[in-house]
Amino acid sequence: MRRKIRPVVALDIGGTKFIAAVVGGEGQIVSRAYRQTLAHEGPKRVIARLCSAIGEVIDASGIRRSSFGGIGIAAAGLVDTARGLVTESPNLPSWNNVPLKDRLSSEFGMNSYIINDASAAALGEHAMGAGVGLSNLVFITVSTGIGGGIIIQGKLYEGTNGCAGEIGHMLIQTDGPVCSCGRRGCLEALASGTAIARMARERLAGGEKSILPAVAGRGKADLTAEMVWLAAKKGDSLACDIIDVAADYLGIGLGNLVNIFNPEMVVVGGGVSQMGEMILTPARRSMKRHAFRLPSRTVRVVRAKLRVDAGLLGAAVYARSEEGRQA
Amino acid sequence: MRRKIRPVVALDIGGTKFIAAVVGGEGQIVSRAYRQTLAHEGPKRVIARLCSAIGEVIDASGIRRSSFGGIGIAAAGLVDTARGLVTESPNLPSWNNVPLKDRLSSEFGMNSYIINDASAAALGEHAMGAGVGLSNLVFITVSTGIGGGIIIQGKLYEGTNGCAGEIGHMLIQTDGPVCSCGRRGCLEALASGTAIARMARERLAGGEKSILPAVAGRGKADLTAEMVWLAAKKGDSLACDIIDVAADYLGIGLGNLVNIFNPEMVVVGGGVSQMGEMILTPARRSMKRHAFRLPSRTVRVVRAKLRVDAGLLGAAVYARSEEGRQA
Repeated sequence: MRRKIRPVVALDIGGTKFIAAVVGGEGQIVSRAYRQTLAHEGPKRVIARLCSAIGEVIDASGIRRSSFGGIGIAAAGLVDTARGLVTESPNLPSWNNVPLKDRLSSEFGMNSYIINDASAAALGEHAMGAGVGLSNLVFITVSTGIGGGIIIQGKLYEGTNGCAGEIGHMLIQTDGPVCSCGRRGCLEALASGTAIARMARERLAGGEKSILPAVAGRGKADLTAEMVWLAAKKGDSLACDIIDVAADYLGIGLGNLVNIFNPEMVVVGGGVSQMGEMILTPARRSMKRHAFRLPSRTVRVVRAKLRVDAGLLGAAVYARSEEGRQA
Repeated sequence: MRRKIRPVVALDIGGTKFIAAVVGGEGQIVSRAYRQTLAHEGPKRVIARLCSAIGEVIDASGIRRSSFGGIGIAAAGLVDTARGLVTESPNLPSWNNVPLKDRLSSEFGMNSYIINDASAAALGEHAMGAGVGLSNLVFITVSTGIGGGIIIQGKLYEGTNGCAGEIGHMLIQTDGPVCSCGRRGCLEALASGTAIARMARERLAGGEKSILPAVAGRGKADLTAEMVWLAAKKGDSLACDIIDVAADYLGIGLGNLVNIFNPEMVVVGGGVSQMGEMILTPARRSMKRHAFRLPSRTVRVVRAKLRVDAGLLGAAVYARSEEGRQA
């Protein structure tokens, strides 16, 4: 008799917000809660909020705690999977070697498993999204930051400490703009949502004409990539140009990855990927210019399917596979 | 009874010269021949020279043709391993989809297997060099060009078409110097032997003082990385500075790889690695500046052990493993 697949708790912790959910055996989301991360308050208070949200989604699911197969945690940061630590994170400042796995395990009396959020999303897209059944794929998430996850031989490639896949901090422009990681010229500093917003602010400050100030209203200082997208959809030429510039850099990053991995597919997720072909078409063109013929013809660059749930569902997949491995 | 491991023919084809050898069952080189590649003469004449050298090393080995286990070919270019083609190569101009595997197979009546030369060297270093027994390692060869090979879970990662590992053409400086591949700002254009020689020529032309013209003698136009190395060993400050600049770029490339792969080891081979700690020490320092803490502390960056034979021995390892797979 096939053993029944047990539900798991899944967490996706970003720099701005986190999601907690109960994920059933078929990958269905049974209950979920969104919260602000408020990362600046430090790990202790964030963990308290995580615990409260987990308790809430467990209660809302109506499933007994003893029935759960564990907790899967996707975190926006550099994770030491073996020791269960968030070692450092540009998006979670002051998180230095935070033992998140042990804290949640002891709080809820279940095994927990921690993984980088983009690696989780790669697992999710491979298990039930755009890359089902593929052997090799690279997942790249483009939002506030840029992260990545690598599937090789149908499995997540985690590297020696579990922190492989940091493709957002691939340097592609020495002396480029400062990145969230403190270094300069990372892909993230040139092609992320943050980079798009920064370029827009700089060019508006330089006096270029655009409907962007009108779109942004009073919050010009808080101009977001989404506003740039909105203006571009209305045909604003500055906004269109900024998205093209970001797409060009994104294509350089994709070209590097395609030369290195010769993958079957690159799956592009994250908030910026919601722009769809507006950014993907020029990014593919740039990728083809920057990569060799054979691998750039082979690869399909597609949009993620699971949208905002990729990390969450991937965390659930990860918890199940780790649970299975240890059983 | 353990089956006796059969000898193989191994080829390592570079842009300048090639080596043909008979490699015995224990990885020992039984006979070998060096030749100029003369790549500009085109594939047909190069292949004729390859065949003549192979015939010669077989004869010199005293081993009957029927005893061979096959031919392993390491080629400096983008290889389609499944179809046995050299698809394109910055170092072998005019090689477009050359069916090298089939040509040699039919010429000698044995199976042959083709692989990129840096991938072969990665296999060689993993099987009998610096990385024996490791699960994950990245091999980078720095000479005229820069190539790479990736070992994951103890096996060569070949990608979808067999052309993974093109880390020399990772773009790290948009608008950087023109690379052999025609693009700009590749790692190869900034940290290879060719880049070191170019920087020396440019800075001498700019009027900087150095013993380099004396070292180079009349051949200033043919200034090589080796001459820069020689001058640096004598304490020439321009030469030392150029090597530091190249090491800095090399460290950026290593940092990107360390962030992406979180490997146990990076093995640095190729002619430029003969400079040893003179280039490796500043390259490690730069790598640590450009990579995250955890993976940069984990990785060991070491010099290749097999020197010029890495590709040759790796081609032999590859032929044996492919022969075994198909048996």
